Amino acid sequence: MILAWFPVDCIRGNVVIFNIVIYRINQSATGAILSPDGAIMIGVGIIGLGTVGTGTYRILTERAALIRKKTGLDLGVVHVAEIDPRKLKGKNIDRTMLTSDAMELIRDERVHIVAELIGGMDSASDFIKEALSRKKQVVTANKALLAEKGDELFALAAKTGCDIGFEASVCGGIPVIRAIRDGLVGNRFTYILGILNGTSNYILSRMTDEGISFGEALKNAQQEGYAEKDPTFDVEGIDAAHKLSILVRLAFSSPVTMKNITIHGISRIDPVDIGFARDFGYKIKLLAIAKKTSSGIEARVEPAMLPLNHPMSSVNGVYNAVYIVGDRVGPNLFYGKGAGSEPTGSAVVSDIVDLAKKISGKAVVSVPGLTVSGRHREAKSSRVPYYLRVMAKDMPGVLSKISGILSDYKISISAVTQQGRKLSGYVPIVMVTHDAAEDGLKKAKQAIDKLSFTKGQSVHIRIEEGNS
Amino acid sequence: MILAWFPVDCIRGNVVIFNIVIYRINQSATGAILSPDGAIMIGVGIIGLGTVGTGTYRILTERAALIRKKTGLDLGVVHVAEIDPRKLKGKNIDRTMLTSDAMELIRDERVHIVAELIGGMDSASDFIKEALSRKKQVVTANKALLAEKGDELFALAAKTGCDIGFEASVCGGIPVIRAIRDGLVGNRFTYILGILNGTSNYILSRMTDEGISFGEALKNAQQEGYAEKDPTFDVEGIDAAHKLSILVRLAFSSPVTMKNITIHGISRIDPVDIGFARDFGYKIKLLAIAKKTSSGIEARVEPAMLPLNHPMSSVNGVYNAVYIVGDRVGPNLFYGKGAGSEPTGSAVVSDIVDLAKKISGKAVVSVPGLTVSGRHREAKSSRVPYYLRVMAKDMPGVLSKISGILSDYKISISAVTQQGRKLSGYVPIVMVTHDAAEDGLKKAKQAIDKLSFTKGQSVHIRIEEGNS
Repeated sequence: MILAWFPVDCIRGNVVIFNIVIYRINQSATGAILSPDGAIMIGVGIIGLGTVGTGTYRILTERAALIRKKTGLDLGVVHVAEIDPRKLKGKNIDRTMLTSDAMELIRDERVHIVAELIGGMDSASDFIKEALSRKKQVVTANKALLAEKGDELFALAAKTGCDIGFEASVCGGIPVIRAIRDGLVGNRFTYILGILNGTSNYILSRMTDEGISFGEALKNAQQEGYAEKDPTFDVEGIDAAHKLSILVRLAFSSPVTMKNITIHGISRIDPVDIGFARDFGYKIKLLAIAKKTSSGIEARVEPAMLPLNHPMSSVNGVYNAVYIVGDRVGPNLFYGKGAGSEPTGSAVVSDIVDLAKKISGKAVVSVPGLTVSGRHREAKSSRVPYYLRVMAKDMPGVLSKISGILSDYKISISAVTQQGRKLSGYVPIVMVTHDAAEDGLKKAKQAIDKLSFTKGQSVHIRIEEGNS
Repeated sequence: MILAWFPVDCIRGNVVIFNIVIYRINQSATGAILSPDGAIMIGVGIIGLGTVGTGTYRILTERAALIRKKTGLDLGVVHVAEIDPRKLKGKNIDRTMLTSDAMELIRDERVHIVAELIGGMDSASDFIKEALSRKKQVVTANKALLAEKGDELFALAAKTGCDIGFEASVCGGIPVIRAIRDGLVGNRFTYILGILNGTSNYILSRMTDEGISFGEALKNAQQEGYAEKDPTFDVEGIDAAHKLSILVRLAFSSPVTMKNITIHGISRIDPVDIGFARDFGYKIKLLAIAKKTSSGIEARVEPAMLPLNHPMSSVNGVYNAVYIVGDRVGPNLFYGKGAGSEPTGSAVVSDIVDLAKKISGKAVVSVPGLTVSGRHREAKSSRVPYYLRVMAKDMPGVLSKISGILSDYKISISAVTQQGRKLSGYVPIVMVTHDAAEDGLKKAKQAIDKLSFTKGQSVHIRIEEGNS
């Protein structure tokens, strides 16, 4: 049943009207349909089955139930366009939804959200424009395109009342775009520091850790699939500059383009300088830097030295991070994987879900955990390594007796130190155990504390290796 | 002019219908009005002018124009409730909007969004329930309330079609709630590691850096305003456990309550163990840990040792951070200030803006930088310290000559090292300068490279101190 229908021009907000109508009928002008139990079904079209497109396809198809549980939205891939048959090889794609013609996908009335994931400039731009002019929501991971033609595309989106989601264009899986745009909306920003290119960061990390040359580190990175055959784009700072231009536009509302950014790469960095930097308390990183100054915005990508105690100094390997200072919130740092099929696909999916919420008129701030479930594990069943300090008299046989008791409780020692730092007549015996049950450890500790040559209560502290 | 009006029951999405109507008239049933140029005006009521309430009031009033520029929304505080007249002292609050009766504020038809910022349990709960039952959107920073009564409040919100924003309840200014909820929506989570209490982290950081006792560090923290007179809540892990229960609910859809969390505080940590931890390559942090295991969810707050090279190890002082692992995205880390008037106010404001977007039917993914502006500064006008390495013969007078040239270009040296690591017959002279203009530095370098006793091109690298 159609409840209401009124002629609307395409200004902001009115898209919602169509969808309220959709909510009450089975098939609407925009093609959204109801699933049997009344959830709104929203169709996604994916253009390009490269690295990011494949990750997006996998997450959307494999995680439809999870997304539905979290948001109440029924999202489905309904059309996939890929011009290169080799890219389909070995991939489990529903062939009935495949086309080699992206325009056919864009025209498909079941497609409400178009994900442009081919990269490059001209075709990508044409597809996005066509999608917007057909009032479809767009998601893209194409940083080069946004850096070069962002003005034009966003203006067209505004005119058609549609949106372009671009979370995946900067820092892959890290939700940094929505953090700056929504999470810190009440702030003016003064400073951005980014490690925006995983390839460069990986190469610099290896040069730093192993003292090897740029050439050698690059070769290793290429062999391990972290650098392209022609690495110019990554190691000369161009990719990082594309991403910086997007961040600057977002944070400073400033139309910075590539020619406003000073760009230097890492290819001329000498390991000797990495060593001296360490002596002075610094680490060399390829930094994307943007500063708001009284004389304008300064934007640069270059290898620079960062104090070792700065949180960005511990961003190593292929990881990316953005450190941004808001005038109300102070510094924030966002860290994670900057590339890869599923991390970047995860970002594309987050935009798709946001746009689906917009289309469906769903709440922006969803209520969490309404259908909560899950058991709670008893803490004592957890097995981790422990630190254990026993205060004991410095005499023969002490360590043997203590390790014997630990062994009785099936606890083995991975490291021990007995440095003779004498504290009130006793010396500390400090041990790190292999994985152990807390329960057993506590019992062993009680037994140790009853020994004649130990003093007071021993101390045990959990060791959390921090990698899940 | 009213375009359409239809009887609707309160299911999700229909709130939007009202607002489409609002969009076209001047005053609606929900009270939203148009500003003279047609922007939607949305009224905010703030209950409680403590630390967070005051920060929220300041940002909303001082940043109305910025928020409008970024989102197109006209947000305004229209009513403020504070029962304690002492809290108004010295604050620049528009007295005409003040009341001591929060229920009067909630009933005010100009108030569309109610921000409950008084803390505590019973009154806060009553206010939120009253607001929801009047179909008002709610924002709260009240972690204890959500941890204890979240189930009931979220169920009521779902029933009334309203939302409860709670970004400010965990990690103050860090937009971690929306990161997990929206940014990583396609992920299942396996692991959370949080440094969720700034007071404890500050105390542990001072104990670690200065080797002082818990008692002494606590006293310092109290004197500096980082710890309450009665610090139990913070140092015994209760506050961190409240926040962990919210994160677990969000990430694992699991109804964890305080009694499911193993809680230990930091008051019994001995500096001796902090020292030994360092010897073994660890740092002691008060960690909130949640793991999904085959036998259920394990949740705990306790002082634990974390490897020094883990990114969470460099979260020091009053900073908070959440490290969370998604199965598609891998690890993500979010870092920033966990408390304070404006950082937490910034989080409250971000929820208010999201809810205002929902009320107004505005886009979820806004187009950035349409009204972009801003000048770009010439890179050469930037002044930072530089690292400079010159290869020179090891003979008397070399350093004097080089520093003389630097001085001619108004560059002063803050540190120099000449360790005699002989590289191909020459020794490196390595300097760190005070702030200098890049232009001058490059000219000085050219002059130095022309000296008879230097070899090849000297190397200069920018030093980015990284604190804006």
